[in-house]
Amino acid sequence: VPSSPTVDVAGLAAAVGPEAVVSDPVIRAAYEVDWTRRFHGRAAAIVRPRTVDGVAATLAWCNERGVAVVPQGGNTGLVAGGVPVGAAEGAIVLSLRHLDAVGPVDELAAQVSVGPGLELDRLSALAGVHGFEFGVDLGARATATIGGMVATNAGGIRVLRYGAMRAQVLGTEAALADGSVVRHMAGLAKDNTGYDLTGLLVGSEGTLGVVTAARLRLVPRLPDRLVVLAGIPTVGEAVEVVAELRHRVDGLDAVEAVLGDGLALMHDQLGLAPPFADAGGVLVLVEWAGRGEPPSGLAAVLERYPSAAATDPGGRARLWRYREGMAEAIAMVGVPHKLDVTLPAAELAGFVASVPAVVTAAVPAARVHLFGHLADGNVHVNVTGADVDDERVDDAVLHLVAEHGGSISAEHGVGRAKAKWLGLSRTASEIAAFRAIKRALDPAGILNPGVILT
Amino acid sequence: VPSSPTVDVAGLAAAVGPEAVVSDPVIRAAYEVDWTRRFHGRAAAIVRPRTVDGVAATLAWCNERGVAVVPQGGNTGLVAGGVPVGAAEGAIVLSLRHLDAVGPVDELAAQVSVGPGLELDRLSALAGVHGFEFGVDLGARATATIGGMVATNAGGIRVLRYGAMRAQVLGTEAALADGSVVRHMAGLAKDNTGYDLTGLLVGSEGTLGVVTAARLRLVPRLPDRLVVLAGIPTVGEAVEVVAELRHRVDGLDAVEAVLGDGLALMHDQLGLAPPFADAGGVLVLVEWAGRGEPPSGLAAVLERYPSAAATDPGGRARLWRYREGMAEAIAMVGVPHKLDVTLPAAELAGFVASVPAVVTAAVPAARVHLFGHLADGNVHVNVTGADVDDERVDDAVLHLVAEHGGSISAEHGVGRAKAKWLGLSRTASEIAAFRAIKRALDPAGILNPGVILT
Repeated sequence: VPSSPTVDVAGLAAAVGPEAVVSDPVIRAAYEVDWTRRFHGRAAAIVRPRTVDGVAATLAWCNERGVAVVPQGGNTGLVAGGVPVGAAEGAIVLSLRHLDAVGPVDELAAQVSVGPGLELDRLSALAGVHGFEFGVDLGARATATIGGMVATNAGGIRVLRYGAMRAQVLGTEAALADGSVVRHMAGLAKDNTGYDLTGLLVGSEGTLGVVTAARLRLVPRLPDRLVVLAGIPTVGEAVEVVAELRHRVDGLDAVEAVLGDGLALMHDQLGLAPPFADAGGVLVLVEWAGRGEPPSGLAAVLERYPSAAATDPGGRARLWRYREGMAEAIAMVGVPHKLDVTLPAAELAGFVASVPAVVTAAVPAARVHLFGHLADGNVHVNVTGADVDDERVDDAVLHLVAEHGGSISAEHGVGRAKAKWLGLSRTASEIAAFRAIKRALDPAGILNPGVILT
Repeated sequence: VPSSPTVDVAGLAAAVGPEAVVSDPVIRAAYEVDWTRRFHGRAAAIVRPRTVDGVAATLAWCNERGVAVVPQGGNTGLVAGGVPVGAAEGAIVLSLRHLDAVGPVDELAAQVSVGPGLELDRLSALAGVHGFEFGVDLGARATATIGGMVATNAGGIRVLRYGAMRAQVLGTEAALADGSVVRHMAGLAKDNTGYDLTGLLVGSEGTLGVVTAARLRLVPRLPDRLVVLAGIPTVGEAVEVVAELRHRVDGLDAVEAVLGDGLALMHDQLGLAPPFADAGGVLVLVEWAGRGEPPSGLAAVLERYPSAAATDPGGRARLWRYREGMAEAIAMVGVPHKLDVTLPAAELAGFVASVPAVVTAAVPAARVHLFGHLADGNVHVNVTGADVDDERVDDAVLHLVAEHGGSISAEHGVGRAKAKWLGLSRTASEIAAFRAIKRALDPAGILNPGVILT
């Protein structure tokens, strides 16, 4: 990790073009803090290139001088991976927002090439014009950029059907730490010519290279949708229902859940009335998408429970409100610890049963809120009533996750905020292999120091 | 690359257990030649461990002494990646056949853990007992092992629907060159805790580590199937039909093609009569799988062409014979050059039109046979009438692929046979990154020298 030398910003501006370099503290400020405002630091300068050559020149200049670089996309991350804090204090922030070019939609291949600065909702709109969709969708769609989503292997609500970002990225162009550019953008369905460099860059959180373009898979837009909200008595039974649905029903787009006090919380905070009588236990939302009538297996499984269903856009949105309202309702209670974890299906019920007591044992005033992507075993553990910097909360939850064989980061990434707990999910041998790969591609350690590896 | 020192086989046997080490030349012989019998070399010994510890001990012993190791699975490869030839002459062959353990099928997660020595058809049978299938299927299913399929990122006929091996492998256990073992087998759907080591090992052809177990995704077994064989006048039109089918029809399992003289060849060599009158142009095979009636869009697209269809197993097998008979018919003409390439959809027609003339310009007596996985742009270019070691054929075809923006290896891998042409599909910067990763994980260069990187 470089020791934050004083950066010759004028020299950097001369090397990469003065129009791309910002050192004005007022403009810098927006790049120096994450959107939750929890993590804030100081950048030597912000570089906002418009071309891959500008990105490469920035990296080459910094690499020669041992200057740390923090790549930044839409700055919607939750783990301090895109702001100059900790080991990256005083770094250059490399904003990819201006690389937002969009290539023509290739209808024959169902693909499109885009720059990392493109926002998710702009990509989705573009795909829609051509009768396609993009396979990943998530709450921050208006501000999250493709580059940040690639860097974090973003997941969201449709991983069940289409996989996470890694499954959508068929090729990349990226600048490596030394300023060399690797480009492999043909997007071929089968292409076994060497190591999966694209897959390695996806999810590397800006520590191995900076993606400057991505070749993305598009999926057909499906005309018909059904959303069912059902109340299932226990987590264990909900997990079994999900397995049965996955086995019997083709075309599931999402299976989400609100657990614990979620329904009461949304009632109290948002005035949201229960969606149906007897709404207790786990609130499970199932979305199917396809053509024509929904498969009969879906109704056959869910008719055992109290439920509500909708096929029209307004009705579907009303049902989704019970899932998407959770973040808003929690924010009205207080600034939460946002922990994003995955449990094996067989361990989910045990984890959910244990987590409130484990948290209150660490911080008695704390309150636990649970929701997430049930089909993926992905639980968003939100904790209010504890100071957001009180790491006893994170420590207690993440240790419990590890005891149940889960992952301490489902989709938000490790960043700087969780790096100290990486050993809960990864062995020493794995971390040694990560370090070897990191040294191989970034020998001077300039790329996003402190992220993933401490 | 190690310089093949004389190997102390007795010392190796003492280190890893004498029962695992074979030096008898008669037994060795089967491991020293590939199944096409084109590539044959000499191994210092064959090591056949029964445990991950045996694999790790073998690697640690070889790593300390700079002894090259060639991992071998079912030995069904086509690119000399699993036999001790070229830079691996005199190496240890590390057979993974005896690591064929099968864990219980996890029905809740739709996953199973298996050893690398398990054959594909045994995995498929096991999955079937529990109502599942495995997402990858290919012709060599009786002998190909999961380990070899992981190492080569095997593709086959259902990549369109389920992706290649990389998409099925949710976790791995692997021994690295120094004998350390990395293990990450929870198979969690969302798990962003560091670099995608599993994805990197998949397709690395035994050059970065030796996979000793894999956590595999299973997919629901679908009860209903329809196969349609259609004659489409031109390659260009066939490519457009595929795009339309992909856009309008859910549940496509495979879209295959027989091109050029294929139908005539199968008639002449196998006595196979045309499947329907007016069978000219490109013979396209479409398989749908799902529940209940096939979607109407499938018939709507294909009824424009002469065709035959079947839903019963016998009828489907008869139609598949027109695609699967190709390899057999070609083998009756002569020992073919087997080139396995991918073209972008928009380039496929141009490539197919050019390839016969390009090949006969290099070797006038040569004859070109074309078939493959149409939806993936994956063409198997088989060339008879030219000596199988006459590299002018390979050189001509692979250069033409590169001119059309394709990949010189679709699913067979690079191995040793294609390593010299890697630069046609990958840039110098990419190959430099591959070398850096290789050095990081295998500093002594013992793992499968000469494969992928020369």
